[in-house]
Amino acid sequence: MNVEIITIGDELLIGQVIDTNSAWMGRELGDEGFHVVWRTTVGDEEQDMLDAFDAAMHRAQIVLVTGGIGPTKDDITKKTLCKYFDSDMHFSDEVYKNIESIFCRTGRTMNELTRSQAMVPDKCTVIQNQAGTAPCTWFERDGGRVLVSMPGVPYEMKWLMTNEVIPRLKNKYRRDLFIKHQTCWVTGYSESALAIKLADFENALPSFIKLAYLPQPGIIRLRLSAYASAEEDAEQVISEQKNKLHALLEGSILVEEDKPLEELVGEKLRSLHLMMGTAESCTGGRIAGMITSVAGSSEYFSGSVVSYCNEVKHNVLGVSEDDLNQYGAVSQPVVEQMAMGAIRVLGCDCAVATSGIAGPGGGTPDKPVGTVWIAAAYKDKVVSECYHFGAIREQNIQRSANTALLMLLNLL
Amino acid sequence: MNVEIITIGDELLIGQVIDTNSAWMGRELGDEGFHVVWRTTVGDEEQDMLDAFDAAMHRAQIVLVTGGIGPTKDDITKKTLCKYFDSDMHFSDEVYKNIESIFCRTGRTMNELTRSQAMVPDKCTVIQNQAGTAPCTWFERDGGRVLVSMPGVPYEMKWLMTNEVIPRLKNKYRRDLFIKHQTCWVTGYSESALAIKLADFENALPSFIKLAYLPQPGIIRLRLSAYASAEEDAEQVISEQKNKLHALLEGSILVEEDKPLEELVGEKLRSLHLMMGTAESCTGGRIAGMITSVAGSSEYFSGSVVSYCNEVKHNVLGVSEDDLNQYGAVSQPVVEQMAMGAIRVLGCDCAVATSGIAGPGGGTPDKPVGTVWIAAAYKDKVVSECYHFGAIREQNIQRSANTALLMLLNLL
Repeated sequence: MNVEIITIGDELLIGQVIDTNSAWMGRELGDEGFHVVWRTTVGDEEQDMLDAFDAAMHRAQIVLVTGGIGPTKDDITKKTLCKYFDSDMHFSDEVYKNIESIFCRTGRTMNELTRSQAMVPDKCTVIQNQAGTAPCTWFERDGGRVLVSMPGVPYEMKWLMTNEVIPRLKNKYRRDLFIKHQTCWVTGYSESALAIKLADFENALPSFIKLAYLPQPGIIRLRLSAYASAEEDAEQVISEQKNKLHALLEGSILVEEDKPLEELVGEKLRSLHLMMGTAESCTGGRIAGMITSVAGSSEYFSGSVVSYCNEVKHNVLGVSEDDLNQYGAVSQPVVEQMAMGAIRVLGCDCAVATSGIAGPGGGTPDKPVGTVWIAAAYKDKVVSECYHFGAIREQNIQRSANTALLMLLNLL
Repeated sequence: MNVEIITIGDELLIGQVIDTNSAWMGRELGDEGFHVVWRTTVGDEEQDMLDAFDAAMHRAQIVLVTGGIGPTKDDITKKTLCKYFDSDMHFSDEVYKNIESIFCRTGRTMNELTRSQAMVPDKCTVIQNQAGTAPCTWFERDGGRVLVSMPGVPYEMKWLMTNEVIPRLKNKYRRDLFIKHQTCWVTGYSESALAIKLADFENALPSFIKLAYLPQPGIIRLRLSAYASAEEDAEQVISEQKNKLHALLEGSILVEEDKPLEELVGEKLRSLHLMMGTAESCTGGRIAGMITSVAGSSEYFSGSVVSYCNEVKHNVLGVSEDDLNQYGAVSQPVVEQMAMGAIRVLGCDCAVATSGIAGPGGGTPDKPVGTVWIAAAYKDKVVSECYHFGAIREQNIQRSANTALLMLLNLL
C-alpha cells in the first residue's frame, strides 16, 4: 500500500527546523508493509497546501500530514483541510475534555485559544491525542483513500502513529506488501570498487530486489530490499541473497544489522558483561552521547572524561606532561594514555579515546585539520591509529566517533 | 525568487537517512533572497523523478536536486535528467581529470566505474565538484528556468552550493526579494497564553510580515519574518516590530538571536573570559557535545566528566558517598556537588550538572521517569532545580541539556 507524507511549516522550508519526523514515519510504516513513495514539504500557505493535498490524494491511497495544527494564528492546516474537504467545523466536547485533562496533568491554565483546539471538522473522524492538545483528524474519500492530519511535534506525532494511526491503517487495508531490508556493513572497499566486485551479483538480482550503497566514513552500508506479497517470500529471497553476498565478501562484512553503531557496541558489551568508558578530546563527548542515547546503557557504560584542555588530560586522566609537551596532544602516546587513563579513572573494562584537530582552526603543516589519533583499549591491551578525515568540523567529530566505536568492536 | 528542492533516494523515504541537506539549503538560500517554497522527496524511481522534475519546473524558477548521482547502479538521477531534458551523454576529459586528482589526493585507485562518473549530459553546463567525484550539472529551460543537480553527500553538496551554485544563481537573477527573520526566545508563557498576549500585535501586523511560534522545552521561539523588495525596507519593518514585541514582552525575552543555545553560551563565556565544564549523568555527554560542536570552543570549554555510574560521581567528582546513599543520585545535594566537583576537577570557572532518570526504565513512584535535577555553578555559587520532563528518553536528554545551558546563561 502506497503512502505519501506531507509536512507543513515555514520553519522546515527556511531551515529553522530539520524534519526528523518523516524518516521515523518511513521506518515505522515500512515495518508494517506500508510503502512511503513520496514526501512533500510546503509552508503555511493555503494554496500550496491545497495543491499538495490534491496531488498526493491522486497519487497515493494513504496521505499522512503533519504540522500546522497548533492554537496560534500561523497554523492553518485545520482550516485548509476544511476547505479541501468542503467541511464546516464544530466544537467537540470530547476533545475539550482531553485538553482539560492534559492541562490539569501539567498544572497549566486553560484559555480561549486552548478552547479553539476543540473545534474539529465535521467531515472527519476525530482521534484523541493523549500526548497533546491538538486532535488528530482522519478524512476518507471515495475509493478508500485516506488523509490523516497529525501534529508536527515529534512526540505527539509518534504517540498518535503508534497507538492510533498505524493500528487503524492495518485494520482498514489488507496487507499486500511485505518489505524486508537487509543491511550489511562492508569495510575495506571504496564505493565503486565494491560495485565492481558485486557487478555479477547485482546483474543477477531479480527485479523485486533492490541493492543500494550507502557510503559512510570508513564503511559502506549495503542495503538489500525485497518487496513481496507474502512475508515468507520476502524473507526467503532476502536470506538467499544475503548468503550470496556473504560468500562474495566474507571477511569484509563487519555486521549484518542495520542498527546504529552505538546499539551494536552496547549489545556486544552487554553480552560480554563489560563496562565501557571514553576519554574524548576532539569528539567532545559525542561518543559518550551516542552510547548513552541507548536506553539501558547504564548497564555497560561507566562514564567519560572529556579532556578538552591539556590540564584535564594530565590532571584527570594522568597523561604524562612530558609526552604532552614533546609529542603534542594529538599524538599516539597521548591518545593511548588517555584510553588507559579512562579505564583506570572510570573503573571500567574497556575504553576509547580520541585526540585530533576538528577544525576549522588549529591545524599545522605537520598536523593539518582532520588529523585524529584514536585509541581503543581493553584491559591492558591498547591499539591506536592516526586518521586524516578532512576539513569539516562536524564530519571530523562524527567520523572520529564512528571510527572509535568500530575499533572497539574489532578489539573486543 | 522562488526555489524548489528535490531530494532523491530510497534511503530517505524508508527512513534510513534523515534529510539534513534541505534545511541547510533553505537557510543559505534565504540569506541570499532565494525563497524555498516547496520540497519534494522521491525514491530512485524513474517515473517519480520525472513527475517531480516536471511539477517543480512548472511551479518554480529554480529547482535544486540532490542525490542519486553516485557511480553505482542504484543511482539513476543523471540518466533520468537526460531523459527529461532529451539529452545524450558524452565523456568529459575535464571531469575525468578532476576525479583523477581527487583519487590521487586520497591515495585511491581509479576503476571503470569511477570513469563512468565523467560521462555528462550534452545539454547542460557541467560544474566541477572539487569535493567529490560526481560532477554538478546545470540545465536551463526557456524563460530562464534552471534545474541544478548535485550530489546528496552533505559536504559535497555544501561545497558546491557555497562555491558554485549560489554565486551563479546570484549572478543570473536580479535580486527581487529580501527576507529578514528576527527570532526572540520567550520564557514564562505557554504557546496559547503567549498568542493571547500578542493578539492585538499580531492582528496589526502588515501582510508582508509573518509571525510564527516555535515552542521548545521551557521556551518559545517567536519568529518574525519580513519579505520586501529592498533590504532597507525589510530591515526597517522588522526592527519596528521587534521593538513593539519588546515593549509587550519585556523581561520575558531571553535572547534575540536565532542561534543555537550552544553558540549563545559560547559567546557569553568568551565575552566574560570564563572557562566552562560539565558534569553529566542523564545527559551522558550531550551538553559537552553541544558546546564542542562549535568551532573555537576550546577557548572556553575545559572538559567534562560524564559520571554515568555512582562510582565516577564519587571517585572523580568527589560527590559524598553518604549523600549518594541517603538521597540517591537524582537529588539536589548530588547534582550540586557534581557541579562544584566539575569546577574543581576540571579547573574551570563555571559548570552545569545533570542527574535524572532519562527512561524508559529506572523510574520509581517517588522519582518517575523524567525527573531531572539540574545545577549551574559559577565560582562558589550554585543554583539547582528539579524538573519533570516526561516519558521519552531522547526528549529528556535534550530538554535537560537545553535547560542546563539556559540556567547557566541566567546565572552568568
